[in-house]
This record gives sequence, C-alpha cells and structure tokens, in this order.
Amino acid sequence: MAIRIFVTGGTFDKEYNELKGTLFFKDTHLPEMLRLGRSRVNVHVETLMMIDSLEMKEEHRKLIADYCIRSEEDKIIITHGTDTMTDTAKKLAELVSDKTIVLTGAMIPYKFGSSDGLFNLGSALAFVQTLHKGVYVAMNGRYFNWDNVRKNKITGEFEEIN
Amino acid sequence: MAIRIFVTGGTFDKEYNELKGTLFFKDTHLPEMLRLGRSRVNVHVETLMMIDSLEMKEEHRKLIADYCIRSEEDKIIITHGTDTMTDTAKKLAELVSDKTIVLTGAMIPYKFGSSDGLFNLGSALAFVQTLHKGVYVAMNGRYFNWDNVRKNKITGEFEEIN
Amino acid sequence: MAIRIFVTGGTFDKEYNELKGTLFFKDTHLPEMLRLGRSRVNVHVETLMMIDSLEMKEEHRKLIADYCIRSEEDKIIITHGTDTMTDTAKKLAELVSDKTIVLTGAMIPYKFGSSDGLFNLGSALAFVQTLHKGVYVAMNGRYFNWDNVRKNKITGEFEEIN
Amino acid sequence: MAIRIFVTGGTFDKEYNELKGTLFFKDTHLPEMLRLGRSRVNVHVETLMMIDSLEMKEEHRKLIADYCIRSEEDKIIITHGTDTMTDTAKKLAELVSDKTIVLTGAMIPYKFGSSDGLFNLGSALAFVQTLHKGVYVAMNGRYFNWDNVRKNKITGEFEEIN
Repeated sequence: MAIRIFVTGGTFDKEYNELKGTLFFKDTHLPEMLRLGRSRVNVHVETLMMIDSLEMKEEHRKLIADYCIRSEEDKIIITHGTDTMTDTAKKLAELVSDKTIVLTGAMIPYKFGSSDGLFNLGSALAFVQTLHKGVYVAMNGRYFNWDNVRKNKITGEFEEIN
Repeated sequence: MAIRIFVTGGTFDKEYNELKGTLFFKDTHLPEMLRLGRSRVNVHVETLMMIDSLEMKEEHRKLIADYCIRSEEDKIIITHGTDTMTDTAKKLAELVSDKTIVLTGAMIPYKFGSSDGLFNLGSALAFVQTLHKGVYVAMNGRYFNWDNVRKNKITGEFEEIN
Repeated sequence: MAIRIFVTGGTFDKEYNELKGTLFFKDTHLPEMLRLGRSRVNVHVETLMMIDSLEMKEEHRKLIADYCIRSEEDKIIITHGTDTMTDTAKKLAELVSDKTIVLTGAMIPYKFGSSDGLFNLGSALAFVQTLHKGVYVAMNGRYFNWDNVRKNKITGEFEEIN
Repeated sequence: MAIRIFVTGGTFDKEYNELKGTLFFKDTHLPEMLRLGRSRVNVHVETLMMIDSLEMKEEHRKLIADYCIRSEEDKIIITHGTDTMTDTAKKLAELVSDKTIVLTGAMIPYKFGSSDGLFNLGSALAFVQTLHKGVYVAMNGRYFNWDNVRKNKITGEFEEIN
C-alpha cells in the first residue's frame, strides 16, 4: 500500500535564517521526520510548493487538486499551513473523488525542538491508512471531515463546527 | 470517544540517571508528550507498571489483560517495551475480546532527543480511533495484527511473519 | 565572586508565537540555561529590556551603561542581539570603567534546538571570571576587545578588524 | 593560538544503542558540538580512547600525560568522565608541566537533549584560552585547581575541598 505525501510548506517546514533573524522555507523536513519515526510505510514525498498558507490562492489549491487527481496512489497526505488548511480541504473535496486525502500541519516548526509536527505526521500516516475515501484534516490527534472542521483562532486548535 | 492509555514502561519512558550513569524509570512522559502533540483526544492515562519488557512475566501480562477487561473504554493503547511486545499482544488477544487494543513503544527513549516515541504515539492514537476491535501492534508508522507480527532483531523494525 | 547578568533581549531569547507564526520576546531563558548547564556560579540575572538589537537606540545603551556603573558586582555579562553588539560594547567602554564586561548573544534562539546560546553562555561565564577589567565581546568560542571586533555580515561570525 | 582537544570518552560521548537498550561509545561528538557552537577557535581534536572513567587505569592516565607532553599546543582540553576526572587531573599535574590543561565532561550525554555538555565545552574553551599554565577542572561554569577539587557524589557537582 503506497502513500503519496504532497508538501506545500506551512509552519511544519519553516526554518530560522540566522543571518536575517527571520523565518523562511528551504527544503522539506519530511524525509528526516520519517527517518526519525523509523517509518517503514511505503511513501513517495513530493514538494509542490513551499509557502505560508496565508499566501495560498485559488490557483495553488487547483494545482494541489490536480496533483491529487493524477496521483497513482489513492492514499494522499498533504502537509499544509494551518491557517487555511480547511479552505484547501474544501476545494479538494469539490474537485477530487475516490481518494483518501488527509491534510496535516504543525503549530511549531519541526526544527524548533518543541514541535507537534512529528506527532501529527504519525497520526496522519495512520489515518490515511485506515479512513475511508474522503477528505480529512488530521490535527490535535484527531481527524475531522472536511465539511465539519475549523481552526479556533484563540486556542490554535481544530474543532468541529457543529 | 474516550481512550484509555495503560503505561507499562519500556524504552519509551526510560531516563538517564546522571549520578549513576545508568538508565532507569521514574514517571511516565505520556502526559508531556500529549501536551507537546497538542492532543485534544479524550484520554485517561494510567500507569500499571514501569518495567523493561524483558522482565515482563506471565503475571504482568495477566494483570494488563485484567485492566483491559475492566476498562470502561473499549479503545485502549498500551505503551510497552518492544522486545516482548508481541508476546503481550498474543496474551491479550487470548484473554480480552470486544475491544480495540493497540500496543506501541519506542526504540529510543522520549527524553533522548532523537526518539521515535512522539511519532509512534501519534500513530497509535490514530489507529485506536479507526481500527476494528482486535489486538494490534503499531510501530514504524504501520499497524500489525497480533498474530502476524514479529520484531526483527537485526533491524529493530517490526514486520509481518508471513 | 558574584557575577551580574543583564538581559537585553536579542536572538538568544526569541520565541515562536504559534498563533501568529512570528518571533517574539516573552521571558528570558537565562535561568533555565544556567540550570541546564548545572552552573554553580554565583550569578544575579536582571532583565533590563527585551528588544531586537536593531531597535536599540542611544538611550537604551546609556541605560545599560547606567546599570553597569551602579552594579555592585564588577564582573558583568550582557546578553545582547548580535547585529549591534559591538556598538553597545563601544558605548560601554566609553562610559564604564574598572569592570569586566562581557557581551554575548546567539545566532539561533535558545528554544530552537540547534542554538549556539548554551555554548556562548558557558564561554561568556568563563571569560568574565578570568579576563582583566575591560569590555569584551564573547562569540564563536573567542573573546574580542571592544575596539577590535566586528560582525561579518556574510558569515555571521565575529572577527578582528585588524 | 591553537588548542588541542584530547577525547577520552565519558558521559559526554555516550550514545544509546537502540537494538540492545544500553549505553555505549561510538564516535566523539566534539566536532558536531563545535559546529553547533559556531566555534571559530583553532582546535585540533584527537581521540585517545573511548572509555567510562570508572574503567580508567594508571596506564590510561600515563598515556594521556604522554600525549599532553608531546602536544605542540600548550593549551589542552581533555574531555573525560566525571567520576575519576580529579584523579587524572592529579596525575597530569605530576607529569606535565608548562602547559594549560583543562579537563571537562558532562553529567548527561550530549545526544540526550538536556545535556550540560555544550555549556561545559564553551566554558572549557574559554578557560583554556585565559588561565595560566597549570591543570584545572572546568565544570558547573567554574574552574578548579587540580589540587583543590572533588566531585560531590550526592549532588553530582564539583566543589573545592577546602
């Protein structure tokens, strides 16, 4: 059972530029994280873009949907910034069918020691292997259907709308 | 949906005694790990024992089974040393029915920086929420049925027997 | 032999705001770092300000100098952003006499796992105990006199001017 | 000003063997630690042995002394287990003259996240650059003359005898 992982950026992969004192994107840490987790799941990691999810526009979401549609694997994980993760989930539910798609991300960059990224990646990998076809958000150890999830801006946690 | 987590020790929870230069058990790190993962899953953590799984005997396994049987929650995670994890899984499959039980552990102690523990905990939490009733081992990002899994002593990874 | 540590902010103490995705200052990590280093040096930590050194103005430098002058301890460490650390060193050399003052900082925030902060703090503490009266910058494992040091903007390292 | 670093093992360099669940020595982490600290000090690192200091015998100490005597650099750091660090310091004071020798170590292995190793290395590097010729122990942010230091077995800290 092969799984496709599409990387789109987000807090997950942010790094600290020590010369400028700012946060930026370089390469994804997904392969390193999978090694750390001693993952033996058959995955193919592909970077589609490396952007903050607040900068994600309609065209980016369509591109992600295109890659999902054309993916040979019907189990797909998408790493994504948390701010607009549910918007992308909605777009994917509209455009992609017959696949299990799990979006996940992190509140703290993986490189910053106290990140939730490794925990979230572990849960996303498990959910994508076990959930039925559909589009889901996997955060805070839970999974949510694309049409019943929002990010609580105060707590930073994901929750059901109803 | 409440989940019960039984702690039994194992590499997961080992710490370094800086006065003696040896590894030992103190308290479980499960609550700290759940906080780090920003878990919002409803879990109850209970420590049953704190031992190396090589020291685990028939009586320990029966005690774990007892707690599983009496647990009000029908979704149970057991943190366990990896060396005899499959033995305990077999015993639980024999004695406990009608529950989803997921055993997980770590190859490197959580406190040692490069641990796989957080990844495994994330995947175990996801698997226990989605798998049917039965007894499973969750390691290396995968899940295994209790009767088709072994630890490869050379690679340290879990694999199917058949 | 008591040592005074004045905290002024800088990369050293930056943290990641997980709700906003930006870097910010909260409390200093100096006490935590001294604990981690198992320091048994008699130190008094005092926070004077918590700012990026690019925002440091004449009035801030005068305030730091005032505190140095009034300090009962004649051995003083100042944690400081690296961008204008040499400017503050120059001002202190002008205004403060008869004390050993060591400025140090970090290229990566202490909270971000791969920080040079703990190494720099260890060296600054050692330098302040052993160097003659004067004003110094302690970075990259070395110490520099205040009038013969600059930060190389390309490499991010401190070096002699001559 | 070149500095020689002799590696002898000790807690500093212990690692966790994930297949056996035990602590062991592989390669020294000194070069990695110097990189992390962004050290620009001119150092030559040489591994003499990789042993627990409780296993260190007269012949090991003589060998270390031999290397110190033959070292072209007159500033030398020795990484060493803490349990018998003061014994080696005494032997070196007896056999080596006209050099500044600083012994340091760690209470927690560098690879275990919460190590004091980086802090100690930073202070040892600073002390060796600034102290007069003699043999010293650098631990807990302080330096001690070889003939007035002991490890307190209860607290794990170094302290003056008198």
